[in-house]
Amino acid sequence: MSKKAFFIVFEGPEGAGKTTQIKRLEQNLIKHNISPILTREPGGTAAADRIREVILDPSLEINPLSEFLLYSASRAQHVEEVIKPALDNKEIVISDRFYGASVAYQGYGRGLDLGFIASLSKRVTLGLEPDLVLLLDIDPEIGLQRIAKRGQKDRLELADISFHKKVRAGFLEQASNNKNWSVFNAEQSEVKLADKIWEILKEKIKP
Amino acid sequence: MSKKAFFIVFEGPEGAGKTTQIKRLEQNLIKHNISPILTREPGGTAAADRIREVILDPSLEINPLSEFLLYSASRAQHVEEVIKPALDNKEIVISDRFYGASVAYQGYGRGLDLGFIASLSKRVTLGLEPDLVLLLDIDPEIGLQRIAKRGQKDRLELADISFHKKVRAGFLEQASNNKNWSVFNAEQSEVKLADKIWEILKEKIKP
Repeated sequence: MSKKAFFIVFEGPEGAGKTTQIKRLEQNLIKHNISPILTREPGGTAAADRIREVILDPSLEINPLSEFLLYSASRAQHVEEVIKPALDNKEIVISDRFYGASVAYQGYGRGLDLGFIASLSKRVTLGLEPDLVLLLDIDPEIGLQRIAKRGQKDRLELADISFHKKVRAGFLEQASNNKNWSVFNAEQSEVKLADKIWEILKEKIKP
Repeated sequence: MSKKAFFIVFEGPEGAGKTTQIKRLEQNLIKHNISPILTREPGGTAAADRIREVILDPSLEINPLSEFLLYSASRAQHVEEVIKPALDNKEIVISDRFYGASVAYQGYGRGLDLGFIASLSKRVTLGLEPDLVLLLDIDPEIGLQRIAKRGQKDRLELADISFHKKVRAGFLEQASNNKNWSVFNAEQSEVKLADKIWEILKEKIKP
């Protein structure tokens, strides 16, 4: 089977079910003899994983600018070391989050200048755009209830509900402004959601 | 005695004797009934200290852009949490390094775009400029010999001599372009150097 590079990003808040849907999509791809490269942000490289620990540590004070710069530092390493080489090698890459998350969390959520986020992100991603962004949209109250069952919350999950509402609006705004984004209702059943994602995706990655 | 905010930065490579000179300057100030706030980069806050560990870890791969973003993330937190409040409170602040180190190391040393470094640094420092930058200049071969005696080297110290020569040029270039920089020969004796620094400084901080 001929290989074609394809870059898929899952976006959405914690509790939307990204991890589960990424696993289901991976299984569907494997059934079709495609082994995707799975990765995530913040993280994906040794240095980026160390930066992730700092970003998510609930005991640390980190201002919005510093937070965005940490995500961007992690992303710069992730793009250079993982995503770009995989796409150059015609792999299908699935990333749990990309720069759209910074637009939503640090831009809409924390109020950092959107133009600044866009220009730094372009430098950090080497201009790389996802072929498809799958936004798993969920009411923040429901998302937070789901993660409450998981135990200790990280630094971003601990922010209040009004922050999470702004983040949701930031995700939906990006989806309506960008053709490569698709929105999915993440409150439906896991199986139905996986089927809908697969419907969209199988068309896109046809050789 | 009336208090006047004053922001002093020591720049120069490892092995130039910054730590020793900062201690001597602190002692001279204390003799004149001034207790300065001592701080350093990368670091100076809990989050920034954690970022410092990542930056300096010799086992990690970090590209020049990512490295600069980590320094900047650390600096954003340092300025907001430590430097700016201290100056607002009319303290004398002495920092071991500031954004001039990024210009020298990531700009001149690693080849990252100087215009980009300048514009991001302006945002990160909230436009704050040191009142006085004391550059301890030393032949990199001598500086590296001095630190070789200290034991394990960090990630930046491990770079080759041509890198350290470019960094030195970057420091000297900044000193010749900026009125608030003074250059000192760091190969002279510790005591003589401390005297020369004190000569300059006592004039500047006269109430």
